Amino acid sequence: MTPPTDFTLWSQTLCKTLEDFLQQHLPDTSIVPQRLHEAMRFAVLDGGKRVRPLLAFAAGELVEAPVASLTVVAASIELIHAYSLVHDDLPAMDNDTLRRGKPTCHVKFGEALALLAGDTLQSLAFQWLSEFSLHPDPRQQRFMIHQLAIASGSRGMGGGQAIDLESIDSSLSLPELEAMHLKKTGALIRAAVLLGASCGQPLTASEQRHLSNYANTLGLAFQVVDDVLDAEMDTTALGKTAGKDAAANKPTYVSIMGLSQAKDFSRELLRTAHESLVPFSPRCRRLEELADFIVNRRS
Amino acid sequence: MTPPTDFTLWSQTLCKTLEDFLQQHLPDTSIVPQRLHEAMRFAVLDGGKRVRPLLAFAAGELVEAPVASLTVVAASIELIHAYSLVHDDLPAMDNDTLRRGKPTCHVKFGEALALLAGDTLQSLAFQWLSEFSLHPDPRQQRFMIHQLAIASGSRGMGGGQAIDLESIDSSLSLPELEAMHLKKTGALIRAAVLLGASCGQPLTASEQRHLSNYANTLGLAFQVVDDVLDAEMDTTALGKTAGKDAAANKPTYVSIMGLSQAKDFSRELLRTAHESLVPFSPRCRRLEELADFIVNRRS
Repeated sequence: MTPPTDFTLWSQTLCKTLEDFLQQHLPDTSIVPQRLHEAMRFAVLDGGKRVRPLLAFAAGELVEAPVASLTVVAASIELIHAYSLVHDDLPAMDNDTLRRGKPTCHVKFGEALALLAGDTLQSLAFQWLSEFSLHPDPRQQRFMIHQLAIASGSRGMGGGQAIDLESIDSSLSLPELEAMHLKKTGALIRAAVLLGASCGQPLTASEQRHLSNYANTLGLAFQVVDDVLDAEMDTTALGKTAGKDAAANKPTYVSIMGLSQAKDFSRELLRTAHESLVPFSPRCRRLEELADFIVNRRS
Repeated sequence: MTPPTDFTLWSQTLCKTLEDFLQQHLPDTSIVPQRLHEAMRFAVLDGGKRVRPLLAFAAGELVEAPVASLTVVAASIELIHAYSLVHDDLPAMDNDTLRRGKPTCHVKFGEALALLAGDTLQSLAFQWLSEFSLHPDPRQQRFMIHQLAIASGSRGMGGGQAIDLESIDSSLSLPELEAMHLKKTGALIRAAVLLGASCGQPLTASEQRHLSNYANTLGLAFQVVDDVLDAEMDTTALGKTAGKDAAANKPTYVSIMGLSQAKDFSRELLRTAHESLVPFSPRCRRLEELADFIVNRRS
């Protein structure tokens, strides 16, 4: 067995910090309505790669942000991500039964409760983001709440899902596919990076642009790799239903570019992501490593 | 025809202010994804009695709050209310086809888009509440966002809906029914009153308690009257499916107390609501009139 790398230790430590926060702050299953709180905890705990939280932590290192603030930001963004998966898996949407190697929320708790669990996880994200003092300047915190709301909404993640729905059985051009994913996956990944970087010292306008470019590029890379894995891997390895994009006749990077070109594209995006980070060297090491992790992952 | 009362003119003027804000700030249907934006606007515009917004405006008058701040608060709360109706009407929940005399959102736009419209209306509420400066002290605004998130979440409205789900075919006691409605309907009505009163001069602790009592009592009265109307009126008069609580075998104030006693109870709650307002006289006239309106309404 190879010893864990420095990056592995870093990510394990911060994932533990995140899990502890989630465990402690998600409503306890002894509180009424117990079954709803069970469903909320089921949807959030013990699952996922925690990519968005880790991006928030890593971006916070650029600006010497306190870990306490970053933990709240990371946890709130993960709630939004978790709620979107619960709703996305519902029969009216993707109708999926397997997520992270477990039954999906509606399979375990029923459709109505899964719907409510998603709804209340979204509320909880904004509750947490407004509960703790995250920055000495309270206007900065208001700005962060605003950014997360936009990223989640109809011009961000929710809008991307609506475009995705419309795209079934249609042929999108590459720019249209990119525009969809910049919203559907990109908006929340971008929010994770930008909110993490909002918790500390202010960035210059030029640094903002570079970081924004990193976040957009990485969001796209994340989706290209998702499409490649969906085409290449089996359901057991993924922990979610594989091949479902093709089965649903949804346009993907693989269906439009072909598998080999999609892989090349993900490596090209990785290079661009690294280049965007140059002005932050050496404080950007974790963001670089996360980009590598996202592009080289196997599930 | 009787001439409009002063209260009617007041509420018409502020409803117009609200509608103008909603019209202007809801995403335009020319913006991608157009169909989602159509569904969001359909769910919010031209409908409802706007009780929660009017409560926010009326509570703002207690503390000399600026109408501009109150309009944002009123609109944000109405978005939460509208999203909850869209999700509540879905086949997985109440499976209702008629709302405010129109087809429900999922009947018109399909289940998947209705789900997303609800989701993104919730995001938009928090977007608006963090977009504009609502109070000279930004910490007060953070507090307001926090209050709305709690009122919407698993220990507020969303939690009340989960308890409601569980109550089908079961027999709740009167205290259990009351506890459910304090969350399901009461939490957002309470938030409307308290957020409106947060936009101006601070209240004393004693005034806070009185206002809180008014809000809780009114939330309950609202639900008792809803149950009475559901039992007494027909679908055309209500603009939504009548008699559905009895059909779904859901416990209501009418099923537990009987019709006549439920009516008496609503009048008793109205008296209590009025009494809670005594310390605010005469600035509480609109809150008194709204309580009368809520209890005496016929739809």
